[in-house]
Amino acid sequence: MKPMHVLLDPALKKPIFQQIADHIENQIVSGELAAGSKLPTERFLASSLRVHRTTVTKAYDELRANGFIVSKQGSGNYVRGDLWEMPGSSSWRQYIQSGALRPTLPMMQQLRDFSQDPHYINFADGELAEELLPNTMLSELLRQYPLNRWLGYSNHLGELYLRQTLSKHLQDEYGIKAAPDQILVTSGSQQSLHLITQSLLSYGDCVGIEGPSYFYAQPLFQSAGIRLIRLPSDEEGILPEAVSDLHKRYRLKMLILTPTYHNPTGTVLPLSRRLRLLELSRALNIPIVEDDVYGPIRLDGAPPPPPLNVLSSADNVTLYLGSLSKTAASGIRLGWIVGAVPVIERLADVKQQVDFGASTLLQQIADVFFTSGAWGEHLSRIRSEVTRNRDTMAEALRTYCGDDLEWNLPQGGFHFWCKVKGEVRDSELFEQAIRQQVIYVPGSLYGAEQGHIRLSYSRVNRDEIVEGIRRLGETLRKLAKNS
Amino acid sequence: MKPMHVLLDPALKKPIFQQIADHIENQIVSGELAAGSKLPTERFLASSLRVHRTTVTKAYDELRANGFIVSKQGSGNYVRGDLWEMPGSSSWRQYIQSGALRPTLPMMQQLRDFSQDPHYINFADGELAEELLPNTMLSELLRQYPLNRWLGYSNHLGELYLRQTLSKHLQDEYGIKAAPDQILVTSGSQQSLHLITQSLLSYGDCVGIEGPSYFYAQPLFQSAGIRLIRLPSDEEGILPEAVSDLHKRYRLKMLILTPTYHNPTGTVLPLSRRLRLLELSRALNIPIVEDDVYGPIRLDGAPPPPPLNVLSSADNVTLYLGSLSKTAASGIRLGWIVGAVPVIERLADVKQQVDFGASTLLQQIADVFFTSGAWGEHLSRIRSEVTRNRDTMAEALRTYCGDDLEWNLPQGGFHFWCKVKGEVRDSELFEQAIRQQVIYVPGSLYGAEQGHIRLSYSRVNRDEIVEGIRRLGETLRKLAKNS
Repeated sequence: MKPMHVLLDPALKKPIFQQIADHIENQIVSGELAAGSKLPTERFLASSLRVHRTTVTKAYDELRANGFIVSKQGSGNYVRGDLWEMPGSSSWRQYIQSGALRPTLPMMQQLRDFSQDPHYINFADGELAEELLPNTMLSELLRQYPLNRWLGYSNHLGELYLRQTLSKHLQDEYGIKAAPDQILVTSGSQQSLHLITQSLLSYGDCVGIEGPSYFYAQPLFQSAGIRLIRLPSDEEGILPEAVSDLHKRYRLKMLILTPTYHNPTGTVLPLSRRLRLLELSRALNIPIVEDDVYGPIRLDGAPPPPPLNVLSSADNVTLYLGSLSKTAASGIRLGWIVGAVPVIERLADVKQQVDFGASTLLQQIADVFFTSGAWGEHLSRIRSEVTRNRDTMAEALRTYCGDDLEWNLPQGGFHFWCKVKGEVRDSELFEQAIRQQVIYVPGSLYGAEQGHIRLSYSRVNRDEIVEGIRRLGETLRKLAKNS
Repeated sequence: MKPMHVLLDPALKKPIFQQIADHIENQIVSGELAAGSKLPTERFLASSLRVHRTTVTKAYDELRANGFIVSKQGSGNYVRGDLWEMPGSSSWRQYIQSGALRPTLPMMQQLRDFSQDPHYINFADGELAEELLPNTMLSELLRQYPLNRWLGYSNHLGELYLRQTLSKHLQDEYGIKAAPDQILVTSGSQQSLHLITQSLLSYGDCVGIEGPSYFYAQPLFQSAGIRLIRLPSDEEGILPEAVSDLHKRYRLKMLILTPTYHNPTGTVLPLSRRLRLLELSRALNIPIVEDDVYGPIRLDGAPPPPPLNVLSSADNVTLYLGSLSKTAASGIRLGWIVGAVPVIERLADVKQQVDFGASTLLQQIADVFFTSGAWGEHLSRIRSEVTRNRDTMAEALRTYCGDDLEWNLPQGGFHFWCKVKGEVRDSELFEQAIRQQVIYVPGSLYGAEQGHIRLSYSRVNRDEIVEGIRRLGETLRKLAKNS
């Protein structure tokens, strides 16, 4: 009889029998245990899992009650033979378990659900609050500027008029020199990263990223068979010299970095490190993807150093990613990649294969938004409102969480990155906070060590910030006492 | 010395020495032949490729002239050691050759370029002509309905208001019963197909498709490691009984079909075949993806049989794909997938991973388009205009191409599917037509046998139709004479 490997975790709230039952259910549903096949005897399974036999009996009872297995007198337990007929089942069941992309982690799915519920104070989503979104501004613009441009399939790079506008915009705002044919219009940075994995990297490649780092990107890389190598960093961002050592060991094919207002840590990579990084990139032939979606969200304080793209423009060693998600509205879904012409052409070709190019309707609207001057006006407003939000959160953190959390004041972006001073389990704090109807992103989702949390001050209003941080402080104190 | 496998094709116009040189250049550029590595001797390569030694000498000369290889006195030929310094090169070169998705076929890239050039009469693109696009209508709507809905990240299935609207729309127009949580909003059918390959199928799976079939889908499946199995068909569409035989041989995991107004052939699968197909799908447990983007483009004549989804709604064996691309504007990029809840959830989860969900701005606009009644009004106009285009093309075909082409009158959709009567090479006809500034899609791109062409009557005006078909007829007669 084949042994069954079940990872049992006594620390979980879920009883052991239920963990066994869930594991077997999962195997049945995924087709690993075929319809009609025989299950291990209770005695055999109990001994191989080192649990008491009654625990396995209970697990099998549970599976039987839910219709997954049947007992045959004197012969043992079997997976049901007619799985397609199971209640709530369909022949799709096995398909859902297939595919190159893995399911989103359960904790992320949970966050996704809570973030749609207005009863929760939302420190989780890195996006603008409803009252900061440019609905009225866009409505006004669409009254003034009729939609009179081509609405058919887009040019594969994006419409020329928008690329010309972006070319000027990038030069004026960041000093980036990009001709229109060096720009690809995408549906946001998430897609930009996806296109890069699908077009420029191969199964087995190693890619250096900051650790902790933007969590939604991780499944994309994993499903493309790409190994993520964590670059060591301190409170100013990554340590360039580490790249050299790691390259010797892993043969890094690419670095994917957020040098400015890093998500989630908020760090800004100093100029000297940027320059050293570019030196290494050239010497070792490792291109850099520079994710700059938070770049425009400079709050008060000194401007950050120039983007890597500007510091290295003649070399074309970077791919620069920008987006309207953080500055205008995350739901517009419009971003861009700047790079060398042949790379942009390759990415554009793949973009066309996966979704047939960007929406020309959106591109018209985005173009009007930039050329009308609305963008600048909107951005000024966002910056000052988000700065006030940040200050409100800093004040509330000092008042309610000063004994339990440590943090740095972010100079840009949407997030505080906090470290819990005492010993608190991430999952416990998260659950307790949810009971208080407060959500945030646990640091573990970014690959951070236990005891980190990301608090966004962009999605909430200032009353919610104060109330949410008060509840969080209460939760932290309660957990500290119990531990 | 390692043998070098070069696929040489004496039938190509390209001389053999050039084929060898191109192959080696490709290997150098892709990194298969490392910088500095030694090439086979001329004698060795000539004997292993069974060509004359002077042919290899010529190939090496060519590579040397272009800076890819260098000769060392008395020692042989070597790949250049400093490839990054090559003219026009950059460290990105090797990356462009990587990635899971293959480059689009050169002929498609060519078509893409020509289709942007207004000097060509465009029978290639299956989309509406500029004057049929709803620019004015949308501008009017956006004047009346301000953008007052949520512009942040979308619900992962798409915004509830749009899914409610689509639910009603699908019921009213096609009799499809779909609750809002059975609908996923995508950025069009191309993305819908991509999501299906990435979420529900695994490397090595076999999928049955019509042959010939929608060509842009093919690279998506191939890059996901999915084997496409061609289902035999006649002038009414696929033959259901063939599914059973092919399943025995290949264990089909899915069928992907366009039962109504198939692209490119224009066939409409009769009711009896639809019912038989559903029977087989249930019996063999093979789900069906039903691509119905052309469904609404019914011209004159009898309505087609109901969608497979309607005929099988209780079974949930289908995934139904729809889109605004053919009815409103291909550049809006908005489509939907209808299916069983768990399948839709899985697809939605992956959609969020690849691009973070649909644009809420586009969803608002689409919702206004449907709920205001504009869609119905627009669709009537499209249908009657496209019908007139079709009739104009039919008349022109009779006049100018009656001796050289065979076709059926399409009852819906945008295309004539024509068979060349005589013996003409696809590539030659295509090249000659381009010289006449007429573009269409050669049947070979759909996997059809030589001598088929797809002519779209949607993207052109009626004067262009007559003139383009006249030029095509002339081209055909010229080629027939020469052959």
